[in-house]
Amino acid sequence: MRVAGFRFAGVAAGIKKKGGKDVGLIAADAPVAAAAVFTGNRVKAAPVLLSAAHLKATRGRLRGVVVNSGNANACTGPAGAADARTMAAAAAAAIGGKPGEQLVASTGVIGQPLPIDRVAAGIAAAGAALSPDGFADFADAILTTDRGPKVATRTVRLGRARVTLVGCTKGAGMIAPNMATTLSFVCTDAAIAPALLARATRAAVEPTYNSLIVDGDTSTNDTLAVLASGAAGPALAGRAVAGFTAALTELLADLATQLIKDGEGVHHVVTIDVRGAASERAAAAVARRIATSPLVKTAIAGGDPNWGRVLCAIGNAGVPIDPTRLGLRIGPVEVVKRGAVAPGYDEAQAAAVMQTPAYTITADLGGGKARARVLACDLSHEYVSINADYRS
Amino acid sequence: MRVAGFRFAGVAAGIKKKGGKDVGLIAADAPVAAAAVFTGNRVKAAPVLLSAAHLKATRGRLRGVVVNSGNANACTGPAGAADARTMAAAAAAAIGGKPGEQLVASTGVIGQPLPIDRVAAGIAAAGAALSPDGFADFADAILTTDRGPKVATRTVRLGRARVTLVGCTKGAGMIAPNMATTLSFVCTDAAIAPALLARATRAAVEPTYNSLIVDGDTSTNDTLAVLASGAAGPALAGRAVAGFTAALTELLADLATQLIKDGEGVHHVVTIDVRGAASERAAAAVARRIATSPLVKTAIAGGDPNWGRVLCAIGNAGVPIDPTRLGLRIGPVEVVKRGAVAPGYDEAQAAAVMQTPAYTITADLGGGKARARVLACDLSHEYVSINADYRS
Repeated sequence: MRVAGFRFAGVAAGIKKKGGKDVGLIAADAPVAAAAVFTGNRVKAAPVLLSAAHLKATRGRLRGVVVNSGNANACTGPAGAADARTMAAAAAAAIGGKPGEQLVASTGVIGQPLPIDRVAAGIAAAGAALSPDGFADFADAILTTDRGPKVATRTVRLGRARVTLVGCTKGAGMIAPNMATTLSFVCTDAAIAPALLARATRAAVEPTYNSLIVDGDTSTNDTLAVLASGAAGPALAGRAVAGFTAALTELLADLATQLIKDGEGVHHVVTIDVRGAASERAAAAVARRIATSPLVKTAIAGGDPNWGRVLCAIGNAGVPIDPTRLGLRIGPVEVVKRGAVAPGYDEAQAAAVMQTPAYTITADLGGGKARARVLACDLSHEYVSINADYRS
Repeated sequence: MRVAGFRFAGVAAGIKKKGGKDVGLIAADAPVAAAAVFTGNRVKAAPVLLSAAHLKATRGRLRGVVVNSGNANACTGPAGAADARTMAAAAAAAIGGKPGEQLVASTGVIGQPLPIDRVAAGIAAAGAALSPDGFADFADAILTTDRGPKVATRTVRLGRARVTLVGCTKGAGMIAPNMATTLSFVCTDAAIAPALLARATRAAVEPTYNSLIVDGDTSTNDTLAVLASGAAGPALAGRAVAGFTAALTELLADLATQLIKDGEGVHHVVTIDVRGAASERAAAAVARRIATSPLVKTAIAGGDPNWGRVLCAIGNAGVPIDPTRLGLRIGPVEVVKRGAVAPGYDEAQAAAVMQTPAYTITADLGGGKARARVLACDLSHEYVSINADYRS
């Protein structure tokens, strides 16, 4: 899994309690176009603030990425800010370029001081291990409670260029829309200007990472970054940029689906498809409300077509609803029509759909043409087990 | 547990799958002052719509209350509306007065047709069983997944009157603020005009029922009603009304606390106390966000002072926050100061507090003087078990 212009590494530096790789580097051979989306949480971790500042100051040209897992360096005060700067400096020493040309990301437990000596030693070790074939090691090093690595790749022809995109992601909880959700890194050899790359990234994030919910919590550290080396020139323009955006969206959709499938204690990935809304905003509010309702999520866990809970969630979304116009389907099974149970509804059919690992719940508000979709999942015993006793 | 002017009954009518009392009546000897607060869910059950109409048409004078558990008569279409009217007519026949003078309430599974013949037979049987000593039977009949009945009583001297209040409540999930939360009924012998009773009820609901959260879902059926027979005249006025409001607030606080202690799978009742906010609205938004965060709730379940999750929830509340001014206490233990771990913080002390059944998490936003408090609880395995496999 190579992409021209980049080298990668992932090493074990003793940050994660449970051991394993926990420091990763992405090194570009020279400054490359870069774009990122960061968490919408008002409490932003030190590396998020630093990375946003670096991207702004360089106008979207970075040399490298440094990530540690096992500690989020969030809510760590001035010491945490200094630690993030130390990571950038160590990355510059390991990779090349200036500290201000590095993107820094951290993930793991919040509020604990970063063991910066171990992190710095890990960055140096990772620098020595950088290799064009190191992407799998890097993808490993960013994981926390994930059950396994999540990587994806795409190759597309855009005009005269044959462009490769390679991406990886992490995160199994604290996942909600309106942010870059968890950590995600994409490297491509496309030649694309920073401003175009930023636009493509924002467009690709919206229907993918911003449309999935595991538990409705948005983390302090979420970072999604795309780096483009330009090795597969010529520079993209016009329709080729649209093609690149489409390929990036496909790649992110692949990663987002892997992400929710690996959500903490997830056994069912459910697409919540809300139609017939007065506005996209209203549709999204309803979809989000359904996807975050603990009563809906436990019904999904139990495979119980307790559709009243879905209608209850719709009513709680804070948008005007005419209950007598509501329609609901579980998979292809029509459950509710005009606000009451559909004629001929067979609960056993709906229950059978809910035994499958992936299905769609379609809610029709009967009040307009706007629509929204989110990826949701169940709330299971494993989620509680993982989170009632988790310190990475 | 008597209150002058009322008789009560609770009988088993075969509506609940698991058996037990499931139809209850409150009968006033004559029309009495009545006030109620109903669910804020946009999808309102048929009995809620009917009861609100009855209260409006009678200008707050009712003769009785009829409740069934085991079936919510929600999302049941025109047939459900007809069933609610049938319940009111059956109650009038059993109690006296007109159908339009009855408050109707239902609780249980949503979207199933009410077994109206059994309900009507139960209402007739309850009518025959009405007794001044029947309050405990009534309190039993309104329960669903509750572990036991929740009743409270207060007697206060207000001017020359010695006033008794008797209340009961039900509900272990689908509990969230900004509604009358679950079912709750209070009978008093106070002599108070309907308009004053309505004002007292709204005032008493705000800091009690509207300030507790089990799972953030607001049901389609929530109803809190207060009936005042006037048997303990003379009519309350001036300071005596304030005294009545205080007594009602105390009674509802008692019931609300019982409610959350009996919340589905609840082992810890946690007061979320948010201070230093720019507005009460902002304080309430932050408190609510903390109380509904699955990651905070599982940390409470695990007794894990993973305070970063609380700060993360604060940052997700959608209100402006200066992270560098945040303070946090778990019980008396200072955990966070100026957005980072407090000097001398001892995690073992915070963990010890979190082992106790009831404690306070205090968040200081450091940005104003407004404050809000909500009662929250843990998200435990039992919650998942109860809700992944629940049909009352």
